[in-house]
Amino acid sequence: MYRTHTNGELRLSDAGKTVTLCGWVQKNRRMGGMTFIDLRDRYGITQLVFNQEINAALCEQANALGREFVIQVKGEVTERSSKNNNILTGEIEIIVSELTILNSSETPPFTIEDNTDGGDDIRMKYRYLDLRRVAVRKNLELRHKMAFEVRRFLDEMGFLEVETPVLIGSTPEGARDFVVPSRMNAGEFYALPQSPQTLKQLLMVSGFDRYFQIVKCFRDEDLRADRQPEFTQIDCEMSFVEQEDILNIFEGMAKHLFKYIKNIDFIGDFPRMTWADAMKYYGSDKPDTRFEMKFVELKEAVSGRNFVVFDSAEYVGGICAEGCAAYTRKQIDELTEFVKRPQIGAKGLVYIKIEADGTPKSSVDKFYSAEDLQKIAALFNAKAGDLILILAGEKAKTQKALCELRLEMGSKLGLRKKDEFSPLWVVDFPLFEFDEETQRLYAMHHPFTSPKPEDIHLLDTAPATVRANAYDMVINGVELGGGSIRIHDSGLQNKMFELMGFTSEKAQAQFGFLMNAFKYGAPPHGGLAFGLDRLVSLFAGLDSIRDCIAFPKNNSGRDVMLDAPSPIDEEQLKELNIALTL
Amino acid sequence: MYRTHTNGELRLSDAGKTVTLCGWVQKNRRMGGMTFIDLRDRYGITQLVFNQEINAALCEQANALGREFVIQVKGEVTERSSKNNNILTGEIEIIVSELTILNSSETPPFTIEDNTDGGDDIRMKYRYLDLRRVAVRKNLELRHKMAFEVRRFLDEMGFLEVETPVLIGSTPEGARDFVVPSRMNAGEFYALPQSPQTLKQLLMVSGFDRYFQIVKCFRDEDLRADRQPEFTQIDCEMSFVEQEDILNIFEGMAKHLFKYIKNIDFIGDFPRMTWADAMKYYGSDKPDTRFEMKFVELKEAVSGRNFVVFDSAEYVGGICAEGCAAYTRKQIDELTEFVKRPQIGAKGLVYIKIEADGTPKSSVDKFYSAEDLQKIAALFNAKAGDLILILAGEKAKTQKALCELRLEMGSKLGLRKKDEFSPLWVVDFPLFEFDEETQRLYAMHHPFTSPKPEDIHLLDTAPATVRANAYDMVINGVELGGGSIRIHDSGLQNKMFELMGFTSEKAQAQFGFLMNAFKYGAPPHGGLAFGLDRLVSLFAGLDSIRDCIAFPKNNSGRDVMLDAPSPIDEEQLKELNIALTL
Repeated sequence: MYRTHTNGELRLSDAGKTVTLCGWVQKNRRMGGMTFIDLRDRYGITQLVFNQEINAALCEQANALGREFVIQVKGEVTERSSKNNNILTGEIEIIVSELTILNSSETPPFTIEDNTDGGDDIRMKYRYLDLRRVAVRKNLELRHKMAFEVRRFLDEMGFLEVETPVLIGSTPEGARDFVVPSRMNAGEFYALPQSPQTLKQLLMVSGFDRYFQIVKCFRDEDLRADRQPEFTQIDCEMSFVEQEDILNIFEGMAKHLFKYIKNIDFIGDFPRMTWADAMKYYGSDKPDTRFEMKFVELKEAVSGRNFVVFDSAEYVGGICAEGCAAYTRKQIDELTEFVKRPQIGAKGLVYIKIEADGTPKSSVDKFYSAEDLQKIAALFNAKAGDLILILAGEKAKTQKALCELRLEMGSKLGLRKKDEFSPLWVVDFPLFEFDEETQRLYAMHHPFTSPKPEDIHLLDTAPATVRANAYDMVINGVELGGGSIRIHDSGLQNKMFELMGFTSEKAQAQFGFLMNAFKYGAPPHGGLAFGLDRLVSLFAGLDSIRDCIAFPKNNSGRDVMLDAPSPIDEEQLKELNIALTL
Repeated sequence: MYRTHTNGELRLSDAGKTVTLCGWVQKNRRMGGMTFIDLRDRYGITQLVFNQEINAALCEQANALGREFVIQVKGEVTERSSKNNNILTGEIEIIVSELTILNSSETPPFTIEDNTDGGDDIRMKYRYLDLRRVAVRKNLELRHKMAFEVRRFLDEMGFLEVETPVLIGSTPEGARDFVVPSRMNAGEFYALPQSPQTLKQLLMVSGFDRYFQIVKCFRDEDLRADRQPEFTQIDCEMSFVEQEDILNIFEGMAKHLFKYIKNIDFIGDFPRMTWADAMKYYGSDKPDTRFEMKFVELKEAVSGRNFVVFDSAEYVGGICAEGCAAYTRKQIDELTEFVKRPQIGAKGLVYIKIEADGTPKSSVDKFYSAEDLQKIAALFNAKAGDLILILAGEKAKTQKALCELRLEMGSKLGLRKKDEFSPLWVVDFPLFEFDEETQRLYAMHHPFTSPKPEDIHLLDTAPATVRANAYDMVINGVELGGGSIRIHDSGLQNKMFELMGFTSEKAQAQFGFLMNAFKYGAPPHGGLAFGLDRLVSLFAGLDSIRDCIAFPKNNSGRDVMLDAPSPIDEEQLKELNIALTL
């Protein structure tokens, strides 16, 4: 062993001990005839002291140490005269008697500090140096701890972690598969799993009863802000359960994590909200419920006043921003610009300010009387000093825009605190989505999602209104996980395929092995999957999942550190029976 | 919840309770006016009883249940008149009052019994039914338990599990990479990791200090008997350590697993054997030390008696099979056939029997006197009743053949018991292998393996004799894990590349990102990796790693259940900028 202690463990009670430490030179500074070095490792920082008068040669050696040199020192633990209460080892320092340079270092391209001078690109290229920064390392330590606690919790609940294969067949799940040419099976390809969905259902057919896996999944998508081509899921499935059982178990898991990791107790059950209410009040299936500011539908209240924007709109709705009546013209204009941005797409923004004396003042005063506006304000329970913001237009699009506006106002008002957590189950998702373009129904989750028994009679007459036994766990507006009760009855399954316009041949070709398996006694089952990256990001208060991934890829799917992907040999292409067609 | 209890938990103390159970119909038999059903789930089997006289309709319904139907029953727990001591629920049965068929089942293609009538191929095709067999499920339960205990142990030792990416760049590690065409980076490919070797070394550069990961690895090799294209490693790395530290930690892990899983205590340290001794005494770098039967080198003892086979041989060696002197001509012939098989390749087999009266009798009596033979026998400490078996020829090949013969005799003599475990560290591996064909040195482990400091002076003069700080853990002749101390000094690393005939350009191209990282303060580090599949197989007493993998692939790398790999659409090929060249 190169060391007797780490740099995080020595305390005043160790004073007098002779110790050997190893680590990286974080800081090297001279004061008078003394040289002080902050020695860093994963566990902390310990101050080393060299005295010119006592050992000039050693002190010279220490002076020559650059940042990030790897050294080993032997010395005596001594009480510090000026203590540092910011670090746990701040009461002691090491009077060094021996120094060995284990490795030198070139000057790193950015400072190894939480507040680094390195930009995103350079930090990604030198990710191994970026990972030395405490803030980044802490995220990965948290990730380890959370994954371990998930395993411990699920193990205690009788779940078995079963590894499913990474080289599988292509399964249609909405996104593109990554594929792997098979050298031994010329012209054929493996696919990397978008999720182990079908495999976990097979494990239920096998009687595994309670399965989980923390597992890499892969989607070859054009990468948006916070997506990675490979990501990690906590994938779970249970047999002989109903939706209620699954919600109970995994709400328990979430509570366990909050308690164990953040010492937060949630009293009572997580609130539940139907998908319909989530859309109605928040315009989103993953509402951020850290704050209220619910949508109020205004179509009825605003119609018939000859304001054509409202009269012609399918939907008129608004939110009430508490205490914002004093917003300036400029501030209102900024909000208007915000909602008119192409990615949000509203045509304009109507406001009603409730002045200090209670009188309303709006951007549509010429269409609405003070009394009209008072009535509208009453629908929001708006009080003096509040600001009502209203959007109108095509329903789905307007709700989405209003959702963005609500989140923006929540942020502006400081209502989206990173250390407050508002969990929620969104339930009763629609079973189908109707696609206007192809004029057919698609499964909202996947084709094995079970309809709610009480809605099954609507499958023939009004399929678009059928609700599914599907659920998402949403915290602070982030969809952390979701799942469903699956169909285990082959009659119902065939009905589903029929409604989605699958011929039985096509259903067989795409889902044959699963449908065959279901012929041999499939139990009632259901499950869900959590995104581990999102879960850790939420707990760490991160803005991007990248910050809790050791070696993430950029928006082009590149690992700039490894310089991957990269071209391969002609020889290898030949062995794989493929050629490039650039 | 569909049930109040599982099929493994009811006891006599539950008698009188009304319970609801779910599961699969394992057996259905009629006796007199009674119908008995064995109901199975993951947790056990519970006997259900239906009485024709009490409820004829219900009994008829029960009689109609086929094997593997999924049912739900409600009934009363009652003491059995004829108890079954083989199962934990054997003292009770359920007098059923309600029966619901949750799902029917076609007759499975093989019996769901440990002693199934299904052959390998059909069981793989219907793996989801094969997994219902208790013997197979137990292996996966063991795998879960072992993986969890490994994590618990390493977490307690301060290791962090860090996920490394699956989509990486190609790294030359001996075997072929599986590659993944990148749609977003036309003409470029990701590679799937053969191991996270370089990434874990980067984590050491990052200061992670103690890393592990239970991780899928991939090798596109022509599959031999017990290889899978994807397999799972327990991958570990530590900083500021020497070989001794690593052996201590992971010997501790192995002991923990033996204690926790199999209740086996190992007293004292695992024995250690140099690679040179392993080759000399067992002809293998992974000797099965459950039994002795060490090689005795005979070249000197047998030379000069005009027996040209021995005189012309580079190597003559033998083993002594205790108590086998009574082997018949036929048995000896079988052994001769065994060693002459092409995959073993010996030319013939010489024997010396030590008769009951102590006189030797051999197949080479015309060359060797009784006194000569006595002298040879003395080298083996052979006693009356023993059989000495001797092979001769080119050294490496003959040692390998003698190793096979020793294992064969060990098996014949019942010396390789599956419930006995003989652990061993093999140490001091050679740093290089010399390849006759290309006339150059190759790294025996990988190019980052550190030479033993005391052998570094030999690098220039006799590189083939330099020993590495490399080690394998071997149990019962299976290499469970191995690793090395890595080079962290760039001067030494360049020397290594030079010795292996790498130009600095080639070294840079292949290992550039790692060598660059090493410029910024790489700590001394080392590690190892265990094969989880092999570890579980050893603990479960399995002959093949396939039996502890949920969905294994066959020898052609196919998953016959999923029918993967498979052709993909022309459209998808086009998107990936590749074409088939069949």
